[in-house]
Amino acid sequence: MAVLRSYVSGRWQRPDDGTPLHDAVTGAEVARISSAGVDMAAALDHGRRVGGPALRELTFHQRAALLKVLASHLMERKDELYALSAHTGATRRDAQVDVDGGIGVLFAYSGKGRRELPNAKVCLDGPVEPLGKGGTFVGRHIATPLRGVAVQINAFNFPVWGPLEKLAPAFVAGVPSLVKPASQTAYVTEKLIELIIDSAILPEGSLQLLSGGAGDLLDHLTPQDLVSFTGSASTARRLRAHDTIVRHSVRFNAEADSLNCSILGPDASPGTAEFDLFVKQLVTEMTVKAGQKCTAIRRAIVPAALLHTVAEATAERLSTVTIGNPANPDVRMGALASLEQREEVRRSLKSLLAAGTLVFGDPERVEVVDADPERGAFLSPVLLCAEDPDRAEPHEVEAFGPVSTLMPYTSTEHAVDLAARGQGSLVGSVVTGDADFARDVVLGAAPWHGRLLVLDADDAKESTGHGSPLPALVHGGPGRAGGGEEQGGIRAVLHHLQRTAVQASPKVLAAVTGEWVAGAPRDLGTHPFRKSLADLRVGDSVVAGPRVVTQADIDHFAEFTGDTFYAHTDPEAAAANEFFGGIVAHGYLVLSFAAGLFVSPEPGPVLANYGLENLRFLAPVYPGDELTATLTAKRITPRENAEYGEVRWDADVTKQDGTSAAKYDVLTLVAKS
Amino acid sequence: MAVLRSYVSGRWQRPDDGTPLHDAVTGAEVARISSAGVDMAAALDHGRRVGGPALRELTFHQRAALLKVLASHLMERKDELYALSAHTGATRRDAQVDVDGGIGVLFAYSGKGRRELPNAKVCLDGPVEPLGKGGTFVGRHIATPLRGVAVQINAFNFPVWGPLEKLAPAFVAGVPSLVKPASQTAYVTEKLIELIIDSAILPEGSLQLLSGGAGDLLDHLTPQDLVSFTGSASTARRLRAHDTIVRHSVRFNAEADSLNCSILGPDASPGTAEFDLFVKQLVTEMTVKAGQKCTAIRRAIVPAALLHTVAEATAERLSTVTIGNPANPDVRMGALASLEQREEVRRSLKSLLAAGTLVFGDPERVEVVDADPERGAFLSPVLLCAEDPDRAEPHEVEAFGPVSTLMPYTSTEHAVDLAARGQGSLVGSVVTGDADFARDVVLGAAPWHGRLLVLDADDAKESTGHGSPLPALVHGGPGRAGGGEEQGGIRAVLHHLQRTAVQASPKVLAAVTGEWVAGAPRDLGTHPFRKSLADLRVGDSVVAGPRVVTQADIDHFAEFTGDTFYAHTDPEAAAANEFFGGIVAHGYLVLSFAAGLFVSPEPGPVLANYGLENLRFLAPVYPGDELTATLTAKRITPRENAEYGEVRWDADVTKQDGTSAAKYDVLTLVAKS
Repeated sequence: MAVLRSYVSGRWQRPDDGTPLHDAVTGAEVARISSAGVDMAAALDHGRRVGGPALRELTFHQRAALLKVLASHLMERKDELYALSAHTGATRRDAQVDVDGGIGVLFAYSGKGRRELPNAKVCLDGPVEPLGKGGTFVGRHIATPLRGVAVQINAFNFPVWGPLEKLAPAFVAGVPSLVKPASQTAYVTEKLIELIIDSAILPEGSLQLLSGGAGDLLDHLTPQDLVSFTGSASTARRLRAHDTIVRHSVRFNAEADSLNCSILGPDASPGTAEFDLFVKQLVTEMTVKAGQKCTAIRRAIVPAALLHTVAEATAERLSTVTIGNPANPDVRMGALASLEQREEVRRSLKSLLAAGTLVFGDPERVEVVDADPERGAFLSPVLLCAEDPDRAEPHEVEAFGPVSTLMPYTSTEHAVDLAARGQGSLVGSVVTGDADFARDVVLGAAPWHGRLLVLDADDAKESTGHGSPLPALVHGGPGRAGGGEEQGGIRAVLHHLQRTAVQASPKVLAAVTGEWVAGAPRDLGTHPFRKSLADLRVGDSVVAGPRVVTQADIDHFAEFTGDTFYAHTDPEAAAANEFFGGIVAHGYLVLSFAAGLFVSPEPGPVLANYGLENLRFLAPVYPGDELTATLTAKRITPRENAEYGEVRWDADVTKQDGTSAAKYDVLTLVAKS
Repeated sequence: MAVLRSYVSGRWQRPDDGTPLHDAVTGAEVARISSAGVDMAAALDHGRRVGGPALRELTFHQRAALLKVLASHLMERKDELYALSAHTGATRRDAQVDVDGGIGVLFAYSGKGRRELPNAKVCLDGPVEPLGKGGTFVGRHIATPLRGVAVQINAFNFPVWGPLEKLAPAFVAGVPSLVKPASQTAYVTEKLIELIIDSAILPEGSLQLLSGGAGDLLDHLTPQDLVSFTGSASTARRLRAHDTIVRHSVRFNAEADSLNCSILGPDASPGTAEFDLFVKQLVTEMTVKAGQKCTAIRRAIVPAALLHTVAEATAERLSTVTIGNPANPDVRMGALASLEQREEVRRSLKSLLAAGTLVFGDPERVEVVDADPERGAFLSPVLLCAEDPDRAEPHEVEAFGPVSTLMPYTSTEHAVDLAARGQGSLVGSVVTGDADFARDVVLGAAPWHGRLLVLDADDAKESTGHGSPLPALVHGGPGRAGGGEEQGGIRAVLHHLQRTAVQASPKVLAAVTGEWVAGAPRDLGTHPFRKSLADLRVGDSVVAGPRVVTQADIDHFAEFTGDTFYAHTDPEAAAANEFFGGIVAHGYLVLSFAAGLFVSPEPGPVLANYGLENLRFLAPVYPGDELTATLTAKRITPRENAEYGEVRWDADVTKQDGTSAAKYDVLTLVAKS
């Protein structure tokens, strides 16, 4: 039987022999695994010396663009991953969650990376902070890629999504990845990495694969490396306290399975849409991936009065779930990942049964189609009911399989307290048509949760469900859930960057950040609207004006636009306004006149003004005031896949005494040449 | 001798006896310290049960406002803190850094809390994320206060600033603090906490003081508590690996002293302003607080050619520093905190001397004024020179006193490499007049630093210096520096909040966040501009229009404003523009007409339009198009200390087919009644 390979230090390495891995459905050997012979220190060094520099040569946008190419490449070859997934006990639907979900993360990070990050090598974090009254000393936070390797230790349940959801933000950040899959399903991850490496889309060294045990890998970590771990809470604890991780303050992110809850609102009695949604979602979460999801619902918290009704309805729905060989299209739930996993679940079930009664399922027996129930790791869905919700077990013991416990609550506070007893969860859901109940539960339970879903008739059709982490939202929770945070859009990219406060003169800060800063030099040569991106430089400026704003202008503008607000039209009322003290020009008049001053009318590289940001009217403009507009190229963002890019301009409209009447950013599209 | 008290569980507790603490200057006993008799579990519980709920009753603005009251209160009583500081060996200038610096952090967080956070109990983090095409399912991150206690373990060197810089963000966040000062200087912190508790400005339970050893404090932590530690790297390691902290994923923030560097640019030869600035700053950092600062310069990295010139100039300047009793106004440098501390520094100096030669100072002998050089913990400033910068010691051994090592570099890359050899620092500085050199060093060294200062002739006058953390900028660094992050404005507040992704229908999301979201219900009753803050509700809306935009309007606006951009005036050129395809209305005309539609002219509660944000022009407006403006109250922010507040309105300007021509936020000031 083939031994799985590692891809480290620029080449594939296959050990001579390893530990057998078995098909979850048939029990047959699928592959062997071992990391024998892998030089862990050399692998990390390869990432740091080869992968990191290659990634840092690229901008955020260039790296994001590569992810899209990779995503499309994998999408065309996903059937190879589906085929292998069947050995893990996954149904086709389970495999879609894993494979398509993972590829979806690549697409999402490619899009967000280009929309929300600069096309540059440095990320700016937050605004310029004035540090002195004279304006000669300013601060700003920059974020730059860590110079180490992101060691990504994944769980067995998502052999494709797991590695890809960790790779995507690390890659966009410019940090090389070393992927270590869990053994049970590592043959799927090996195929995934093979598809990626063979494509040659990513720079060498930016992605390595370690199949088998981690050996002394962690001993070689430095302060610039990171560890992202998904798996059990107990392993998370062991790694977090690892001597090298502690000694070097290595960034350690853990995402551990937790005792997630779903709460049914008191309004959601039988017959309501929300009652049905609750039951349906509970059954889905119990059976998708045979309940082997960190985010699955372990505790179903329902109004005491509805406890038995919910139990009956859930049991009825569970009874319709066909279990067996995922190759059979009728099968809704496949096998657990391994026989060992099933034994583990049965052990946990024993503890849970001390505090609850069996509502559905037999932990020792299950009917399956097209498979041998003993050779395959099959287990019936098991629904328990804990009449006494104050017992410890349902809040502490996790059975990582198709297992949930129902329990009753008596008030909103009680429901929130029960949710909190999980001591930190990845996700919770509230199913209710009552917005006030939803608000109270969400705000009460939020400190214990990384994500909270409110499901109701309004969003049910588009809802992605309790169990699905999304690239745009954080995945991870406090306490028992590991205290980490993955995804959440650009947040996960920032977790791979070092934030550094830079203090300098405006001129130097502009040189460091690549963005013009108030107080930095301006270049007043050719009108910058006549320059294409090829010629335009940050700091290129135009000063235009002055133009006097007359009373007649204000009167006319009021009449023309219909904006007859009293501050522009009624001298007496305007005088009584504490901010004005007399007739003032419309803010939009000031903006319009400023545009009239700085515009360059003939066709040229500036294609459109597509927006405006951070506008503040800083001083009233009175009849007779003279306006001067100064426009300065602040940030230039060429697009990777278009003949133009975005230019952000600093606009400062001043009065005759030099004070600013308005400041804002003008956003334009400008041709590359 | 009085034993220092603890303030826990709502009362002051004084043990019968404790360990003696000595005056750093005279050696006389100052106080005794012990935590005997303190019930640690009860103290934490008091914070959680009494302090937390009291804080969470207040909004971010209300808590921020209390900090300002507290800051003013302490400012009036700071002489009491100065008086005690003298016993720690601090000069008056040292005490100012500590006392005024600490009070300054309170003022800063009071201001930032009110300017940058909502006047609400929930903080919104990032924009609304669309999660489905139909708009019925959306996501957003909220941040809510952790329900535990912030355990703040401080270092001996800043007995006032240390506790206050940790208290301020925790308090604004709504999380109670338990302050544990380092023993040596705990009598200053005891006075500080006494001043605060006696003032009764902060709610009971929001601040507790633990004088003496921590005992079993950490064993009682839960997943909702936090630990912020400032001190040595070795203690940081021990705490980080504490079983309870690891088991519960307790948020642990460490700020450890590090081997910070200052780099002189190759341009800064003798005679330049930068050469003098470098030497002056180095001497300041060596002597302020007798070099007992986590941020002090330990490694002075200079061009090889300038090594000896810098050494001479620094030695000359050091020779002018008067050392002795801080009570003497001529004294520029006082004593170390204790005789033990001096022994510790001398031990480290022995290691450093293995790799460097003595340029200035005698570790065993120092001349002092008005004091006994043996009874007081006096030490000469010691400048070393490591001709071979590749030796390990200067990059690894920290002497926590008035000690620095000069070393040569040969290229920009070499300077960056040497900086990185500190394995993670709180701060570094670059002293140069060359913006390109500054940029290269900053971008190269950033991944190893929490803060980088570029000092030059331009910013020298306003620069706050290498060693000063500022409330607006992050304080903390990777690796050896502890991997933590304090301050940085609102960032430190967020470190005390749990970020939770909420997924819901727009209606429910609005109820949870208190902010109107596109898709949530609108209330089209009375024109919302006629409502004061007392009556206005999120979701109150006005729909106004339609108004046709004619060719004549566009022609007229071009002529009136001077904005004759070809897309508005030249049909042929406009037709060639790929975004327009013909004459389009000015964006500012669309805004102006929209204002004309939704304005309510008569005097009323709306006082002023002070700004506009997030404007995007989403579709061109052609002659003949009809505009409708919909304005909806999105967020309401009453000011704590004024008769008005801010109202943010969602503006959506649509065309006759329902598509949006422009979307933006209008910012107004509205009277409370």
